[in-house]
Amino acid sequence: MGALRRKLTRAGLPGLLVTYAPDIRYLCGFTGSNAAVALTRRAARLFTDGRYTAQADEEVKAARVEIVSTSPAVSAVEWLAAQAGVDASGFDATRTTVAELARWKTALPVPLRRGFLAALPTPFVEQLRAVKDEEELAVMREAALMGCRLFDRILGELKPGIKEIEIAAELEHQARRMGAEGMSFETIVASGERSAFPHGHATQAALPRRGFLTLDFGIIHKGYCSDMTRSVFFGKPKPRERKAYSAVLEAQEAAVAAVMAGVSASEVDEAARARLRREGLAEAFSHSTGHGVGLEIHEPPRIGTGQRTRLQSGMVVTIEPGVYLPGEFGIRIEDMVQVTQSGGQVLTPAPKALIEL
Amino acid sequence: MGALRRKLTRAGLPGLLVTYAPDIRYLCGFTGSNAAVALTRRAARLFTDGRYTAQADEEVKAARVEIVSTSPAVSAVEWLAAQAGVDASGFDATRTTVAELARWKTALPVPLRRGFLAALPTPFVEQLRAVKDEEELAVMREAALMGCRLFDRILGELKPGIKEIEIAAELEHQARRMGAEGMSFETIVASGERSAFPHGHATQAALPRRGFLTLDFGIIHKGYCSDMTRSVFFGKPKPRERKAYSAVLEAQEAAVAAVMAGVSASEVDEAARARLRREGLAEAFSHSTGHGVGLEIHEPPRIGTGQRTRLQSGMVVTIEPGVYLPGEFGIRIEDMVQVTQSGGQVLTPAPKALIEL
Repeated sequence: MGALRRKLTRAGLPGLLVTYAPDIRYLCGFTGSNAAVALTRRAARLFTDGRYTAQADEEVKAARVEIVSTSPAVSAVEWLAAQAGVDASGFDATRTTVAELARWKTALPVPLRRGFLAALPTPFVEQLRAVKDEEELAVMREAALMGCRLFDRILGELKPGIKEIEIAAELEHQARRMGAEGMSFETIVASGERSAFPHGHATQAALPRRGFLTLDFGIIHKGYCSDMTRSVFFGKPKPRERKAYSAVLEAQEAAVAAVMAGVSASEVDEAARARLRREGLAEAFSHSTGHGVGLEIHEPPRIGTGQRTRLQSGMVVTIEPGVYLPGEFGIRIEDMVQVTQSGGQVLTPAPKALIEL
Repeated sequence: MGALRRKLTRAGLPGLLVTYAPDIRYLCGFTGSNAAVALTRRAARLFTDGRYTAQADEEVKAARVEIVSTSPAVSAVEWLAAQAGVDASGFDATRTTVAELARWKTALPVPLRRGFLAALPTPFVEQLRAVKDEEELAVMREAALMGCRLFDRILGELKPGIKEIEIAAELEHQARRMGAEGMSFETIVASGERSAFPHGHATQAALPRRGFLTLDFGIIHKGYCSDMTRSVFFGKPKPRERKAYSAVLEAQEAAVAAVMAGVSASEVDEAARARLRREGLAEAFSHSTGHGVGLEIHEPPRIGTGQRTRLQSGMVVTIEPGVYLPGEFGIRIEDMVQVTQSGGQVLTPAPKALIEL
């Protein structure tokens, strides 16, 4: 809350309304679905409904809980408007619908309807969430290692003829048995020519006798997401396939090596892109190099062309270049990397040398 | 599109902008993630980006496809503004953020910024989606039957000592093997005292030697969601437990019997509530009786107190009363029910008499 209050003061705002669930969880630990947080320089209050009385008691830290029988967000707006010295409150314009804003305004006294609620054009709390503290980093390291263990276990199941969806099901089954709260996104299992689809969800297709298989998956552990990708090969790769794999691996390692506090996101992206350009594979790398990860699977910063954000110590980002050759094959290698003052620390230490099955 | 155009005309609007993914899928079949549909009385156009060229070709019906390199929604707004005779376009205020609206306005010529975009205060397309056509109903019947088959298979796995999360994992594993595209929500497995939590997600808790177990789950089949709940009992129920189960079952059957085209949602809710009130269990039934289901797991109409919406033939709703006695036990029974002119047709014909394991 300290960092958020400083940011609020810099923005010249005496109050803040927070309604986006991951932001609320981040600020005070509450995981219920119907809630709002109101924050001033002196006080923080969580509003939710009667279904969550016990849960709020147990979970909420650093905020007073108020159980309401009407809309938590409307109650939060009314509370903010009643605080002495609070003549304006920010809200996240990227997470508030036009209908919600209209409803909040109706709840305000007429003189306040015009100026009291101030639209913050960029995600205010989400940007703070990009930099993780020690406690968060410890959980994310655990989540990343669970992902690595899963990859290790699923390797033994990968055999030609087995269906992609069976691999996805087995992976998800093992994740649950390992204690994961869920998957952080729909598991990608793309084999043979389908590996050329960057987001090939698992289908009824059978794993091929020869060709690439890309596995991209993540689990949720204590609220935090993991994310990793490996491409493996069935049979004996041809020189062209082996060469493309090496290029992706070198691009991935170059981008990981470029990660360091103070470096811009676009520089990290360019480190991967430059390597693939040299191999004539620039066009085949059709997406960004990576993204922040945390309570959500996609968070700021984006590691892509033109992204000027400077990396900060405590950010956790993915580094995941790939090449996709439609009708032929695709390859992607992805790690989670923690940004530190002295460089990037890989949180997903699963092998990256080409595995031939 | 015909029904939507008639609705548009009644609202006095020459244009409509649709950006909510389930609405887009409903209107023209497209399942990609970055798209917008612009609709006038004469034309319909889908805007998306280059990643989806092939997918849009394959999927989109009843709209012309335009591939754009900037924001699909902004392109759709610009296109609408350029159409002869289109001086205003509606957009869904419940699905549009304040930041998106600001961005769309910036893309408009200055004289149009004030009046061209008209906020529709209720979900315009979503309300149409509530009434399913024959093709949708056929898919939903299949989805519901897949759910019943899953319940039948998981029954054999339910044994004291097995963990709730293992049951959830097995259920999800079987769903994938059956060809489901995914689960329609996080599977609820709540056993023993935990059955008194209406939304008890699966935990590490072991299934008890005696007590209730509530299973609430759904699969996604061809884009459509299924949803069903059964409570079963381990051991021999006491008279009080048996009585509560009978009350919930009678309440559920009374509400199913109340379903018919023309009846209001609140009447159906009241049918269940009245039965539980007679048993002194009104307080223990702490949520609504049901909700619409379709491309999303929660859709209009809501079957609850004070809901005046009249049911229409072709709607599919859940009927799911429950009683929750904290520290003791909970019970919920849920079916999917299709509304017809002559009554409600249950789509989930799994047994409802108390199963003792």
